[in-house]
Amino acid sequence: MPASVQEYLEEKRASFEADLFELLSIPSVSTDSTRAPEVRRCAREVARQLREAGLTKVEVMDTAGHPVVYGERLNAPGKPTVLVYGHYDVQPEDPVELWTSPPFKPTVRDGKVYARGATDDKGQFLVHVKAVQAMLASRGELPVNVKFVIEGEEEIGSRNLAPFLRQHKDLLKADMVVISDSAMFAPGIPSILYGLRGLAYFQIDLTGADSDLHSGVFGGAVPNPGFEICRLVARLKDASGRILIPGFYDKVRELEPEERAEYAALPFDEEEFRAGLNVPALDGEEGYTVLERRWARPTLEVNGMLCGFTGEGAKTVLPNKAMVKISCRLVPDQEPEEIAALVKAHIESLVPPTVRANVRALHGGKGWIAPRNHPALKAAARAIEREFGRPPVFVREGGSIPIVVDFEQILRVPGILVGFGLNDENLHAPDEHMDLGNFHRGIRTSMLLLEELAGVPAGLP
Amino acid sequence: MPASVQEYLEEKRASFEADLFELLSIPSVSTDSTRAPEVRRCAREVARQLREAGLTKVEVMDTAGHPVVYGERLNAPGKPTVLVYGHYDVQPEDPVELWTSPPFKPTVRDGKVYARGATDDKGQFLVHVKAVQAMLASRGELPVNVKFVIEGEEEIGSRNLAPFLRQHKDLLKADMVVISDSAMFAPGIPSILYGLRGLAYFQIDLTGADSDLHSGVFGGAVPNPGFEICRLVARLKDASGRILIPGFYDKVRELEPEERAEYAALPFDEEEFRAGLNVPALDGEEGYTVLERRWARPTLEVNGMLCGFTGEGAKTVLPNKAMVKISCRLVPDQEPEEIAALVKAHIESLVPPTVRANVRALHGGKGWIAPRNHPALKAAARAIEREFGRPPVFVREGGSIPIVVDFEQILRVPGILVGFGLNDENLHAPDEHMDLGNFHRGIRTSMLLLEELAGVPAGLP
Repeated sequence: MPASVQEYLEEKRASFEADLFELLSIPSVSTDSTRAPEVRRCAREVARQLREAGLTKVEVMDTAGHPVVYGERLNAPGKPTVLVYGHYDVQPEDPVELWTSPPFKPTVRDGKVYARGATDDKGQFLVHVKAVQAMLASRGELPVNVKFVIEGEEEIGSRNLAPFLRQHKDLLKADMVVISDSAMFAPGIPSILYGLRGLAYFQIDLTGADSDLHSGVFGGAVPNPGFEICRLVARLKDASGRILIPGFYDKVRELEPEERAEYAALPFDEEEFRAGLNVPALDGEEGYTVLERRWARPTLEVNGMLCGFTGEGAKTVLPNKAMVKISCRLVPDQEPEEIAALVKAHIESLVPPTVRANVRALHGGKGWIAPRNHPALKAAARAIEREFGRPPVFVREGGSIPIVVDFEQILRVPGILVGFGLNDENLHAPDEHMDLGNFHRGIRTSMLLLEELAGVPAGLP
Repeated sequence: MPASVQEYLEEKRASFEADLFELLSIPSVSTDSTRAPEVRRCAREVARQLREAGLTKVEVMDTAGHPVVYGERLNAPGKPTVLVYGHYDVQPEDPVELWTSPPFKPTVRDGKVYARGATDDKGQFLVHVKAVQAMLASRGELPVNVKFVIEGEEEIGSRNLAPFLRQHKDLLKADMVVISDSAMFAPGIPSILYGLRGLAYFQIDLTGADSDLHSGVFGGAVPNPGFEICRLVARLKDASGRILIPGFYDKVRELEPEERAEYAALPFDEEEFRAGLNVPALDGEEGYTVLERRWARPTLEVNGMLCGFTGEGAKTVLPNKAMVKISCRLVPDQEPEEIAALVKAHIESLVPPTVRANVRALHGGKGWIAPRNHPALKAAARAIEREFGRPPVFVREGGSIPIVVDFEQILRVPGILVGFGLNDENLHAPDEHMDLGNFHRGIRTSMLLLEELAGVPAGLP
């Protein structure tokens, strides 16, 4: 990076932080309807900062929920267009009494800024805004075209984002989407996130008699939905952790030998992981490591169960209902609808003739895997290596980020997921924070990323 | 029964009912501490009626809880002493809005008196009081010695009764105990209840990680106590309904061929029973009828379960705890402590190494079976046949009545359980009632019972 740019960044260090703190001081809690005005105020502040950075056509665009902030700069003809996604809404601050400093009064301690939204996601999307600002200030123009989509409903499921993408497909046309809303693998070990799991979520309700019965008078002769639901759930996985639903594994993309080798080389200690969770032993599908199980294998887990008397002590009731929620994490190329149908049919086949069953698929989402050999991902890796002095590790995550799939499916662009957070920065918890060193490093990485992406041919699928 | 006695009963019909209604108008709800004065007022009214009937040494005796009312008449030297047990406390009247007439304003409709406590147990123990009164009035003396113990804590577990029996062992010395606190087998089909089941109640808590985890980030690699508790519970019974706890059946007293024949001859229709409960099919241990399963076979039932997220919709939590309450109904000669130890040890042996388990025995009680050939039971059967024109059926019940075991173990007397209620009289529910025809029939049966018991040698075990 030229000395002039370094100087500019040094000079702007305090002002960039001040802009971040300005965003962090606005309680843009999207789930709290009484704070809708604050959410909108935050959108306006994002728009102001986009304009200040030099973006044009900046607009706070309405949706059926909280607004999306849009901005663009399209002065690089023939060069690819990079869409940057982020979200300016935050999780609620409860329990507020557990915060060391007030959640919406950004406070710096030990090189970290503490505030709700610091790492999730205000501090992360802002690095790209500031990269644009720094590039324009130091060299007058950007090497690529950029578009920003900063939404306000990520923490409540991004329910209006897919409709927004569909509605503004032409406006949002791009060659790749860059998302910084995740963590590095570890401090000093940057990562590119190239895979996410999907989801298929179910609720099973079993019903026996019309009402709860006395376990003395009726016990031993009448169906017990509580016992039957246990028997049913127990039959869904075998002792080796293999899911016993016919067809379940048919479309699972097996791990590449290269991926397995990469995961094995990561600084991840299974015993340390176990001890950190304080479980007596880890669990899972035989034949796979812990990272493989979490990132690249499908699961079937109990999420909740309810039946009969759950208070203190003994009540001799023979319950007439039992409920279990189970969900499967899916991996490419499993299709949520197909899996939902397989799971539902299999569970229904296991229901004994003594009870009535209601098996519902509640919720689903596709898994995602990036094309690792895409020039955009290679460009991102080069940018990261230039800043960090080491190449990023390629990792997946076990959770789902539905918006990544939305961007891929609706806009047909590959996602580049580069996180500048850390795993211990308490997102969704009290004392959320972001390392300010990583904030500034993120700005530099983003500048290098835009540079590297300039070399990627536009119009690639 | 001599015409003079018949006449006396006819003449007293209204006054006996008035005394019953007087008891029923007192809200002696033992579980409600604000009504302790009403409970005591009811005890005093019981004492008044015992005195009026001609009993002596009548006393409201204090316990650590609600008082016991005692009375006796010991003017039949050489004759057996009959202890009559009953309870004057009642269940709460909630939900009061579902009552057709006020629960503590006894109201007669269609030959039945509607009020809380009508059949459970004020209307039932009172038949013995009135029988004593009628015998003394019509022939001057009783054919046996009698003692009455009417307690005020049956509906809250009779916690002070066993201590009371131990403390007053000499005062309460008797040859048999007569209890009317149950139902006839069906209208017009009187029964003697000769067997009850016991209980061993457990709570199992499984714990995995220190807190709930994200099912995406951790799912597939970390123990899931919800799934493990299902697997554990499912392994406690086989597909034929047999309980898989080693040693569980060792002391189970098998049904006598005579008992099986008697149950088979009862007017009980399994299909009607199934339809009444509205279950798709009945369930239970292979090789036994529904009545055998409910009355004479031990069980293992799930009473309650709780784990993870149980609200509406989908929450992708990997729960760190799961709880299940299970209980076994026991039959003679299973010992609750022995069974508790067997169950606990077996469950602990099933706990996988991935989770921590806390298996607790919460509560237990012995089953009970009367010596059916005891002269006192034969005498009771004769008395019933004289009044009803048909012999009683001998039945068991699936529930537990711990006080029966207390009387047997502490006072060493056989129990004679003769109920004058009906199964549809809504005990513990709104619109509890008692058939007044059965009330008067109960009085006559009790008089015949005292007569017949006079022929039983005193001092039999």
